[in-house]
Amino acid sequence: MTVTESKPRYKYVGTRPVRHDGLEKVTGRARFAADLNLSGQLHGIVVRSPHAHARIVSIDTSKAEAMDGVKAVITGDDFPAVDPSNRNYDMCVNIMARHKVFYEGHAVAAVAASTRDQARAAAAAIEVAYEVLPAAMTIDEALAPGAPVLHDHMMTKGADPPATEPSNVSDITRFAAGDLDAGFAEADLVIEREYTTKPVHQGYIEPHACVADTGQDGHTTIWCSSQGHFNVRSSSAAMLGWENTRIRVIPAEIGGGFGGKTTIYLEPLAVALSAKAGRPVKMVMTRDEVFRATGPAPGTKLKVKLGARRDGTLVAGDAYLIYSGGAYAGSGGLLGAMTVFESYNIANFGVESLNVVVNTARSAAYRAPAAPLTAFAIETMLDEIATELGIDALDLRLANAVAEGDPSTMGFPFARIGFTECLEAVRDHPHYSAPLGPNQGRGLAAGYWFNIGESSSATVNLNEDGTATVVTGSPDIGGSRASMALMAAEELGIDPLDIRPVVGDTEAVGFTDVTEGSRATFATGMAVVEACRTMVAELRGRAAKMMGTDIDDIDWVDGQAVYTGSDGDKAPLSVAAICAKAKRTGGPLTATGSLEAHGAGPGFAVHLCDVEVDPETGVVRVVRYTASQDAGTAIHPSYVEGQIQGGVAQGVGWALNEEYIYDSDGVMENPGFLDYRVPVASDLPMIDAVIVEVPNPAHPYGVRGVGETGIVPPIPAVANAINDATGCRLRNLPMSPVRVLEAITANGGSDG
Amino acid sequence: MTVTESKPRYKYVGTRPVRHDGLEKVTGRARFAADLNLSGQLHGIVVRSPHAHARIVSIDTSKAEAMDGVKAVITGDDFPAVDPSNRNYDMCVNIMARHKVFYEGHAVAAVAASTRDQARAAAAAIEVAYEVLPAAMTIDEALAPGAPVLHDHMMTKGADPPATEPSNVSDITRFAAGDLDAGFAEADLVIEREYTTKPVHQGYIEPHACVADTGQDGHTTIWCSSQGHFNVRSSSAAMLGWENTRIRVIPAEIGGGFGGKTTIYLEPLAVALSAKAGRPVKMVMTRDEVFRATGPAPGTKLKVKLGARRDGTLVAGDAYLIYSGGAYAGSGGLLGAMTVFESYNIANFGVESLNVVVNTARSAAYRAPAAPLTAFAIETMLDEIATELGIDALDLRLANAVAEGDPSTMGFPFARIGFTECLEAVRDHPHYSAPLGPNQGRGLAAGYWFNIGESSSATVNLNEDGTATVVTGSPDIGGSRASMALMAAEELGIDPLDIRPVVGDTEAVGFTDVTEGSRATFATGMAVVEACRTMVAELRGRAAKMMGTDIDDIDWVDGQAVYTGSDGDKAPLSVAAICAKAKRTGGPLTATGSLEAHGAGPGFAVHLCDVEVDPETGVVRVVRYTASQDAGTAIHPSYVEGQIQGGVAQGVGWALNEEYIYDSDGVMENPGFLDYRVPVASDLPMIDAVIVEVPNPAHPYGVRGVGETGIVPPIPAVANAINDATGCRLRNLPMSPVRVLEAITANGGSDG
Repeated sequence: MTVTESKPRYKYVGTRPVRHDGLEKVTGRARFAADLNLSGQLHGIVVRSPHAHARIVSIDTSKAEAMDGVKAVITGDDFPAVDPSNRNYDMCVNIMARHKVFYEGHAVAAVAASTRDQARAAAAAIEVAYEVLPAAMTIDEALAPGAPVLHDHMMTKGADPPATEPSNVSDITRFAAGDLDAGFAEADLVIEREYTTKPVHQGYIEPHACVADTGQDGHTTIWCSSQGHFNVRSSSAAMLGWENTRIRVIPAEIGGGFGGKTTIYLEPLAVALSAKAGRPVKMVMTRDEVFRATGPAPGTKLKVKLGARRDGTLVAGDAYLIYSGGAYAGSGGLLGAMTVFESYNIANFGVESLNVVVNTARSAAYRAPAAPLTAFAIETMLDEIATELGIDALDLRLANAVAEGDPSTMGFPFARIGFTECLEAVRDHPHYSAPLGPNQGRGLAAGYWFNIGESSSATVNLNEDGTATVVTGSPDIGGSRASMALMAAEELGIDPLDIRPVVGDTEAVGFTDVTEGSRATFATGMAVVEACRTMVAELRGRAAKMMGTDIDDIDWVDGQAVYTGSDGDKAPLSVAAICAKAKRTGGPLTATGSLEAHGAGPGFAVHLCDVEVDPETGVVRVVRYTASQDAGTAIHPSYVEGQIQGGVAQGVGWALNEEYIYDSDGVMENPGFLDYRVPVASDLPMIDAVIVEVPNPAHPYGVRGVGETGIVPPIPAVANAINDATGCRLRNLPMSPVRVLEAITANGGSDG
Repeated sequence: MTVTESKPRYKYVGTRPVRHDGLEKVTGRARFAADLNLSGQLHGIVVRSPHAHARIVSIDTSKAEAMDGVKAVITGDDFPAVDPSNRNYDMCVNIMARHKVFYEGHAVAAVAASTRDQARAAAAAIEVAYEVLPAAMTIDEALAPGAPVLHDHMMTKGADPPATEPSNVSDITRFAAGDLDAGFAEADLVIEREYTTKPVHQGYIEPHACVADTGQDGHTTIWCSSQGHFNVRSSSAAMLGWENTRIRVIPAEIGGGFGGKTTIYLEPLAVALSAKAGRPVKMVMTRDEVFRATGPAPGTKLKVKLGARRDGTLVAGDAYLIYSGGAYAGSGGLLGAMTVFESYNIANFGVESLNVVVNTARSAAYRAPAAPLTAFAIETMLDEIATELGIDALDLRLANAVAEGDPSTMGFPFARIGFTECLEAVRDHPHYSAPLGPNQGRGLAAGYWFNIGESSSATVNLNEDGTATVVTGSPDIGGSRASMALMAAEELGIDPLDIRPVVGDTEAVGFTDVTEGSRATFATGMAVVEACRTMVAELRGRAAKMMGTDIDDIDWVDGQAVYTGSDGDKAPLSVAAICAKAKRTGGPLTATGSLEAHGAGPGFAVHLCDVEVDPETGVVRVVRYTASQDAGTAIHPSYVEGQIQGGVAQGVGWALNEEYIYDSDGVMENPGFLDYRVPVASDLPMIDAVIVEVPNPAHPYGVRGVGETGIVPPIPAVANAINDATGCRLRNLPMSPVRVLEAITANGGSDG
């Protein structure tokens, strides 16, 4: 670990106690959504479209309704009508199609029956008549003249001149600074490259699952795995046309989300089925359904042009980015535009990015959404520029890297960031100068994610015995419980293992936004610290009562109430000592903290990847990997390392193997982990995570989000390493053996 | 309803909205403890002693352990040893016997198996060898010379001279004031009477039930029905020798408690069985077990002497009270001593009260514990004095009733109380002067309960849409959820039905004491009000931001933020309007309140009961009943009425029918609702509840506890009515047909 700024000496923050969620998980006690079974529960199954694009002519549920064990059948007609002007329109019609289906796997009906087999049989007996329509499966098909237009109401936002006809382009984003023509004119070297990438799935182990129990009282309880149960509540309410207060959502343990569980698919269906049947309904997706019907990261088509002076200074950048959001408008275009030039100072730039709809499953967030792909372009082009200009690739990045005070794409200046420190950490790492073996190559790449703040709430309750419960509304997708406990421990002077961090349901804790944007430890951590500081003020008051003095004479030092007055010596009081007398000094000790967090510090990472390429098969094997990343302050370093390692693993899979494959009818051909190949343990070396700590000035402990940045550099790092090993530039994902082999043998050093 | 003091005009407090717990209950959605089934759960059964008193020679569990489906067997050896000096000793050895059993039904072992039938069969196969000991079943038997002494360590506390030998008297309480001899010398009339009463059960519909899920991680989750889940946590922890933080207790809906669910019986057994089996364990008592092994109210033997002047002024009182707490020391003696003379000003009094142990189930609290029996004595004696002195019974009480400033038994002065107002309410009620039919009689009686405060916590969370969630730690045994919502509605200006009141589990809300002593609406209500007032301060700040002004310029008026500054007009802002902008003004809105509540206002009640006595069978039928009670302020009047009516129903059952009957071996003969006769709907007239409101100055809305007082007057009211109808004085409970008939026919007007 590299610590680049002096930081306070913490007692608990930065230590590695037994993980609060660890014992439950390794002993099988953690209860994931599919682990819950209610007495009398039914099983729900979704009927899905076999067509990529079709009009629903009719749905006949009568045979299914008459079958053994069937208690309820629903279709789109069981939900309130929704208009395209409604901001939840896309989500609602994605969860249950109305009139048209937009991808193979799109839900058209659902059935609940006593057993899963009965439900499956009934689902098969639901007769849906379709009028099959021509489909647009790729960006090129969607943008081709005469392409089938998916949504009659889709008038491109941001089009210039304004759109007058519907099309498959949902919106266009533009950012610019300086003078692009002048910038390129100033350049000694200009290169322009094109890239394509395919949709890839987040690959979480746990399929979407929920149980809903809807009563005649008009209330429902939903148990489910999600990245944000308050969002499950409001989204379900929107789809059902209910008030939020009728819905309680209890978060289950989550078996991976990576952005894919920031939206919902099953919950309103389970609620509606349960309401109709008068029984709890459980719904668990198969892996096949997860692939066909939940959101992958978008596929893209990117064109980037960079201009540099002979000394390596980047002077101009132009990007044209197309992201395919699947069947409905996505946010890839915006996020791509925000990230493509963000890591480097480029005085003159322009970005135009499009979100395009195609007849595949609606895309969802995936760890640092859009950024790995813009990094793929920029970071491989920087490698080319470095080679062309004879500059060391790391020095080139150091020379252009953004630092505190530099303007971001959107114009505001960066606060203190650690990009340079991450580059230096890699330069100083033994890996950087280690020798390479035959057929091996080394690639360097940087990456960036802005991270977000949003709303968080926390409640801190002290128990009679001086232990504490910390309740937050953030599902723990990567160790946030342990981080909350450590920050609370530091504030309160309690051993972290005497603190029970809990993820509260929607009726137990204050509103909290989705766990996304690497915000949990940052923003929810701030809410915990706020609650603890309110608590400390209360503890000081209680201690003053116990000592018979005034609160102003009590300081909080090292987790103890310390008397600072002049009336002789008084022994300091610990939290446990104050709790023991709480009934006599005012009652139980509780506090909340809530905030809209601002100042989520951008996270930078620099990765170094060694690959070995089999020249006969094109198989690329990652043999060494070092990943530096600025965590601001690592609250529980083991979890930070885990986040970095997890991001690398996913990025390597994205780089080398993962892709959605469709047949000519738009039917997915590889909806399972046998054919959709994510990395397994044996595919990867131990990833050396180097934590850089440049504290975020906006957070009381200096935290930056760490969950996402780690997936940004791997694709270009692998690509640069392959180039180093083979001399081949691959610009189309995945860099699968066949593509690598073609590049080596047939195409003279390129894949397209 | 009689309102005796001017009170503020509330918008929501005092109204009767749809009950927040109503829809769930009438639609069968409310989930009681036995409604929960976890996947893989086992069923636990307790092996119980067939003997009232015996030494456990040996327990052989080997046959049971070898039986089909059996996954775990436990005995006392599976729990840490516990010493009589431990304050949890009685509870621990009551939950699972060690070495000796003290009553028929005492737990000696428990078994968990895949099915309940398997568990029952295995329980029957556990071989326990007993050395049967002579038993003491009644107060007389326990106090007789040479009586079997239950506990070798029981040295009477408070004995004078100090006890030197163990006995069955656990403790003696004494209170006195004035000069007793002088007082009686001053009296023109002195009467002395003796009373006996039998143990009676609270008769809650829902048997004790729980599910415990203990993991290898050393943590357990308990779902159970109780009056206080924080107490279930600490009591279970004490029995298991665990830290509190290893136990999470989730409160189920409760199907009646009335004091009987302030202690625990099954939970540590379920936890231990679950730990041994590695599976969740569910335990549900049968009704038989509830009767044999959970706590009834104590049986008593009371001797009271009262002296009055000719004008009716009470001048002296002497009481000797014996309460049998079952197999372990109870608190009846203390509570009897605190209540016997509390309602009237008696300048000279003495009380001596004993707690005695006998070989019956350990007694537990039952609605105003001990008070109905002291009232039985005092209120029937006042009737005799009134008759003897030719004074109207109501006037006699009015003349002696305590009022603000009068000293209580323990010496402190009463704050504002409503005893006189309750007497006047009855005097002014049409019932008071209504004619009686043949064989009918009318009885008047008063009653009193002191109520308590204790620790409570509440959290208030505002939702995005301006609705609110109010989380407290008080199980709702009588409508407290609705009361919490109404008080929060009043504070926040939100419709009560837009507030979701929730009972939070031990990891969701701050420490909260047991729902007992009629404290929930009082003390937990104060915590809710405190949290709401913190919230209002925050809302004012947010409104100030929205209006671009300072918080000092914002008042909170009728649930709205109102601008009071001089910078023109600004529209007031509702909670919903402020919530809608919360993300821009500081994030989610949350607040907690916690306190140790003081000043629980004593509750007085005056009841008027008409009975019709069948002179041929002795059957007593209650034909009209009016009950006035000082509620301080009735937050949700329908619930207050329900509490009063419920208390009356239970009191009438206690008066007329209920009793534990044992055979000569100390085996209970009527452990079921067929033989233990509680009143059913057809036994009672509609009870006219008259709410008197004399606000409690210690509560922000003037609340007094209302849950218990209503059970205090019915026994003497019925007894006085029987006397009025028949001329017979019954002084032994129950006043069953056979006793009444004997009094009428054989004994010349008395039952003993």
